Amino acid sequence: MSFPTSSLPAFVIPPLDQSLAAALQAKIDNKTKPIGALGKLEHVALQLGLIQQSLTPVLQRPAMLVFAGDHGVVEEGVSPYPQEVTRQMVMNFLAGGAGINVFTQQYGMRIRIVDAGVCHEFSAHPELIRAKVSMGTNNFLKMAAMSSSMCAQALINGHKLAQAEADAGTNIMGFGEMGIGNTTSASALVAVLCNLPVEQCVGRGTGLDDAGVAHKADVISQAIARHQVDSSDPLAVLETFGGFEIAMMVGAMLGAAERRVALLIDGFIATAALLVASRIAPAILEYCIFAHCSDEAGHQLVLEQLQAQPLLNLGLRLGEGTGAALAYPLVQAAVNFLNQMASFESANISRQDAS
Amino acid sequence: MSFPTSSLPAFVIPPLDQSLAAALQAKIDNKTKPIGALGKLEHVALQLGLIQQSLTPVLQRPAMLVFAGDHGVVEEGVSPYPQEVTRQMVMNFLAGGAGINVFTQQYGMRIRIVDAGVCHEFSAHPELIRAKVSMGTNNFLKMAAMSSSMCAQALINGHKLAQAEADAGTNIMGFGEMGIGNTTSASALVAVLCNLPVEQCVGRGTGLDDAGVAHKADVISQAIARHQVDSSDPLAVLETFGGFEIAMMVGAMLGAAERRVALLIDGFIATAALLVASRIAPAILEYCIFAHCSDEAGHQLVLEQLQAQPLLNLGLRLGEGTGAALAYPLVQAAVNFLNQMASFESANISRQDAS
Repeated sequence: MSFPTSSLPAFVIPPLDQSLAAALQAKIDNKTKPIGALGKLEHVALQLGLIQQSLTPVLQRPAMLVFAGDHGVVEEGVSPYPQEVTRQMVMNFLAGGAGINVFTQQYGMRIRIVDAGVCHEFSAHPELIRAKVSMGTNNFLKMAAMSSSMCAQALINGHKLAQAEADAGTNIMGFGEMGIGNTTSASALVAVLCNLPVEQCVGRGTGLDDAGVAHKADVISQAIARHQVDSSDPLAVLETFGGFEIAMMVGAMLGAAERRVALLIDGFIATAALLVASRIAPAILEYCIFAHCSDEAGHQLVLEQLQAQPLLNLGLRLGEGTGAALAYPLVQAAVNFLNQMASFESANISRQDAS
Repeated sequence: MSFPTSSLPAFVIPPLDQSLAAALQAKIDNKTKPIGALGKLEHVALQLGLIQQSLTPVLQRPAMLVFAGDHGVVEEGVSPYPQEVTRQMVMNFLAGGAGINVFTQQYGMRIRIVDAGVCHEFSAHPELIRAKVSMGTNNFLKMAAMSSSMCAQALINGHKLAQAEADAGTNIMGFGEMGIGNTTSASALVAVLCNLPVEQCVGRGTGLDDAGVAHKADVISQAIARHQVDSSDPLAVLETFGGFEIAMMVGAMLGAAERRVALLIDGFIATAALLVASRIAPAILEYCIFAHCSDEAGHQLVLEQLQAQPLLNLGLRLGEGTGAALAYPLVQAAVNFLNQMASFESANISRQDAS
């Protein structure tokens, strides 16, 4: 089970070819509406055209990958929910009862549930992808969350999974997660990689009170002080703070962008994973559609760091990919207006008066 | 064609019966998610349960009513587009080429195109509802936009249309509009009814430059000074500043809420119409789901006046009902999570630790 880091894929993501940008913008501006009147949908339409290198982009086989993993740091009392909820929620996903099941079904998205490192041996299930690296991470207050080889394994697993989905025809992919304790990992990743004060990166997670938030920040601060990890080494930071579901998401995001898949980025944890991925291959950000700004403190900060303009701001803080799924119809709307709306010429509509 | 105001319906809208509120909130809180984690969707789920007086609300036969009318005030040069664009866009709606066609088709909403007062005699068309009161309003800089009887007629026409749709099974209805010059009417309505400075209520509309915006504000200010209308009389204000599509929308909103239809409120003009309706029957606001905050100056102000928390903020400024249509999948998501998500008990999931 040990993979040297040298076995990692190269993660080569080219910047978007901008040669179609002017033609796409002209097509958008010639639709029967005032210039810019569809706001952010126009940006998404342009971006999808560039990603697909097409004036008529289409969305195919939309998929939501939901990665689950457990976190040793829950020993420190950083979550109001017990660790077993990770396993229980995986079972809920498989039974179709979670929020992400409801929304992906509503919007016609495929959903894949992935065990990246849950502290439970699941029986085989047709809907479960078993890619467990370990039975949860180590408590990062005491040691690195995972070894380098385990981190590499999680990245490789995610990379392979996303590329298999892309090879099967998926060209838009959402990323969700479940893992009791994973806002603690995400906060640590953001604080270190962005060199931000821990207190600004820590929020209530699934429902901590003020004392709980302060304790969580204290645990993270102690861990950062202990490990003294090089913040310019994204893999070292990822290994140190985990978790497996985040590492696998990083690999999946990189693998998907390599195949020119548009990435639908969910909330705080998915955005933290993207932050890691963007330190490995910065051009990945050009493939990202930011779905929403969550209520979790720290998410707004990392969105700002990534210069992201999310589509939704609904006060969501559920994770699972729910925000990404809820944004999907807006992405469809962007493609549809680009492909289906009449132009001024085709509809015989007068243009704005010259003035 | 003359109808005395006394022939108006009574417009009786009772406040929502709150007796199911506790049971609905308990059902929401017992879903497999942290308390409040679905943010604004939880508010929508609760509201729809109260509107429908049901723990399992459903959305039926969703409809988008798009009202078109012309505005005499365009003589004053308040829009960068010529008046004929209203007629041309109605033809575009009927041909299926406009933004609202694309989005209503995407989301499975019925669309009804209504001639409330376009300056053109349309031929019969199976998709066009002909409810023209007049060939456009008067120039409100010089005289009232319409007579009392014409205003009553537009209100009655809208009321009947909405109730016919409700009687056919629609329980959620969006309201859109088209009318070159109608941001000028809407700005005047908001400035007078909310007693706000005209400058704050005036925006770029379909694309005015700074000088155009200043001119538009000046026209409105002159008209307000000339008419000296009683701002506590919503019908007098509506008659004075128009337009027919706004008046018909007011009637339709009132008629729909009387039948316990949930109202999806679009952008600045639809919200101005709702403002008028709310001065006639204040409880209508309890039936409203605010779809989005547009880029049009003045919309944010009137949303604040109505204490509205819109779902989307995408920089839209197209009108037609497009923002309302784009919010519809989120409303569906609210209903679906309420009806389809597992509870903690049904999914055997541990609750938050007592702490």
